[in-house]
Amino acid sequence: MHAIVLFGHGSRDPLWRLPIEAVAARIAATAPHIPVRCAYLELCTPDLAAAVAELARAGATSIQVLPMFLGVGRHAREDLPELVRDLRERHPDLRLDVMPAVGENPRLVALMAEIALQPL
Amino acid sequence: MHAIVLFGHGSRDPLWRLPIEAVAARIAATAPHIPVRCAYLELCTPDLAAAVAELARAGATSIQVLPMFLGVGRHAREDLPELVRDLRERHPDLRLDVMPAVGENPRLVALMAEIALQPL
Repeated sequence: MHAIVLFGHGSRDPLWRLPIEAVAARIAATAPHIPVRCAYLELCTPDLAAAVAELARAGATSIQVLPMFLGVGRHAREDLPELVRDLRERHPDLRLDVMPAVGENPRLVALMAEIALQPL
Repeated sequence: MHAIVLFGHGSRDPLWRLPIEAVAARIAATAPHIPVRCAYLELCTPDLAAAVAELARAGATSIQVLPMFLGVGRHAREDLPELVRDLRERHPDLRLDVMPAVGENPRLVALMAEIALQPL
């Protein structure tokens, strides 16, 4: 079973998560057969390890992680790959793929430019 | 003259800014008559005040600020409005509009969901 994790920075502020949760809800509506979870680097739960463990228990054999970062710094380039290395050791039968950060996607860049050019 | 500011969190890591700068480059290529600047809340320059002052000196009479945040917490809901209030006092002849954070845009939410569903 294939599953998706949206991996964001996290915040103490519960409202902070709403846009990422909206993406998860949209995925669930579009592809109800694909389990989707949000996971966070810090300041809120679940973390990536907990989300992956839960999906593995539920039968996921392949998890695709989308880093929900517009800026691509240490969190996306170093912290996430390190977490993923640990998780691959902990779940040797699980295929764990990490996509480029969402902010690096050319279609997303183009859409953000289009949004900025829309008059209010 | 209308101008655009892309307002992001900022990071010490110079690579962090590349996706936001790619959006600015895309805007400049699409609408070369509209000046566009990136500005940051912290950890790198220019800050919002410096970007707005530079655009005002260059003749901008209306600046539209797009908050480049996927998560919408204190930075987007409190820090940015406070900065904008100060700037409106400092530039009474300038029209300064703040868009909803880019992560709240329904088309962006839909595209991020679509990206997450693409096989690697």
